[in-house]
Amino acid sequence: MTATTNPQPGPITIGVFDSGFGGLTVLRTLLDRFPNARFVFLGDTARLPYGSKSRRTVSRYAAQSARFLVEEQGAQFLVIACNSASALALEAIQQAVPVPVLGVIEPGADSARAASTTGDVLVIATDATTRSHAYSAACTARGLRAFEKACPLLVPLVEEGWTNHPVTTQVIRIYLEELFNEAHANGLTPDTLVLGCTHYPLLRPLIEQAVREFAPEGFRVIDSAEATADAARALIGNTIPPTTLNQDQEKKQIQCFATDSVEKFERLGTSFLGRPTGTVQLVDLGG
Amino acid sequence: MTATTNPQPGPITIGVFDSGFGGLTVLRTLLDRFPNARFVFLGDTARLPYGSKSRRTVSRYAAQSARFLVEEQGAQFLVIACNSASALALEAIQQAVPVPVLGVIEPGADSARAASTTGDVLVIATDATTRSHAYSAACTARGLRAFEKACPLLVPLVEEGWTNHPVTTQVIRIYLEELFNEAHANGLTPDTLVLGCTHYPLLRPLIEQAVREFAPEGFRVIDSAEATADAARALIGNTIPPTTLNQDQEKKQIQCFATDSVEKFERLGTSFLGRPTGTVQLVDLGG
Repeated sequence: MTATTNPQPGPITIGVFDSGFGGLTVLRTLLDRFPNARFVFLGDTARLPYGSKSRRTVSRYAAQSARFLVEEQGAQFLVIACNSASALALEAIQQAVPVPVLGVIEPGADSARAASTTGDVLVIATDATTRSHAYSAACTARGLRAFEKACPLLVPLVEEGWTNHPVTTQVIRIYLEELFNEAHANGLTPDTLVLGCTHYPLLRPLIEQAVREFAPEGFRVIDSAEATADAARALIGNTIPPTTLNQDQEKKQIQCFATDSVEKFERLGTSFLGRPTGTVQLVDLGG
Repeated sequence: MTATTNPQPGPITIGVFDSGFGGLTVLRTLLDRFPNARFVFLGDTARLPYGSKSRRTVSRYAAQSARFLVEEQGAQFLVIACNSASALALEAIQQAVPVPVLGVIEPGADSARAASTTGDVLVIATDATTRSHAYSAACTARGLRAFEKACPLLVPLVEEGWTNHPVTTQVIRIYLEELFNEAHANGLTPDTLVLGCTHYPLLRPLIEQAVREFAPEGFRVIDSAEATADAARALIGNTIPPTTLNQDQEKKQIQCFATDSVEKFERLGTSFLGRPTGTVQLVDLGG
């Protein structure tokens, strides 16, 4: 481990953490809200998937990752752009580092609360996130009724690059038809759908197209990535004055780290981030 | 760890190992060939996927798993029903235990050698197995030209239970059309396709249907699971006399262990094994 480097004074450094690289969709929305910030992103690709691991193990991995971003990369604010880590380890991360930490689930639920009129909300996510019922709990705490569905084929379809493919259209149609039917059979009148996985923003056009088939006019699709970036904006606010990046800082605005699979990260990362990830540095967190 | 229990004298005990539960398709074919044997199966589900991990790590995990099956469960013969472990750790496993060890890749390549007239062979597998080029190397060593293709959507489709679904038919058609076109563009005249993943036998009817679209009459589909069971039969032969199982032994013919995710194992295992897996026991191999 190298010595702590805190880049202050200068632009704020925001750390973004995921078990893989799906969280780059969250980084993408953060770049919109904080055009002058510096970002350090860590994908703990050597130890993914987190979803099948115990709370204790995920907490240990996530806390190590958070400490890397704060102690070694000088992050002054941390975004947990990973549904499993947000669901299982938010508290452990908050205890591990002395900076504010924001997960993706609470902002997603807040956004659903603001959008929904009927109070009935649908959530699509991975199998692991669904089994954790973290979105359900966060929605219930806000007086909403939530109905969750696991859509395990969507992540592999995105990773295959089939984000605008007839097969993906068909799979989304099948999942959403089942979801709407099950929700109606359970007496819900949903008017909001939460995308509870960091891969799903890449499927948003296809998801919105399918939603129009099964839902009334005015049905809302909420992206947890967008909601999280908005929440970060609200939290950080104007306490840190906007700084204009100099040319050197702009080049170094994003630095990505991964614990394994750098090749896949670099290959797929660009479509998640909406711009090149740059060289991804391999980092060893042990364990 | 409990004390070593060797069930001799009595029926032979065959240990079968996989990183997950896909290897149950290999166990299924072994049951056909060894109706009187006792089987212990271990899925190292806590540490999957092996495919993205280094050779050193996979070797360590696989050797631990092999020792559990031999030292604690009395396995007298070991089948590595996992392509990644066969590709990366066969030698390490052979050094770790004092019983014969058979992987899935060499038998698959032997079977392709026996089936092919043109000497040109196609292999479909996961991304990890394809990147290891283990099938290519084994085919080349037998004087064959092999052309490999990763089909990353097939495992998730099987795990979603869509083994006879129009979406799966379409995905297989897309993959095989690309594979045949690429092989022809590279000057190959393939007459054999190897199913290089333990999940794929569940898709065999759909794969054979798609093959008929793109390949001439007489084109052969080779299942590594079948090839491996045949190789085990040839190796074990009649050195161990057939024993008739008594009623008590029959009930205990298969004992499955997993290091995590027992629920998914039990839920999906039956379709892989072709009969109920029975209660899956959780086992802790540490690290």
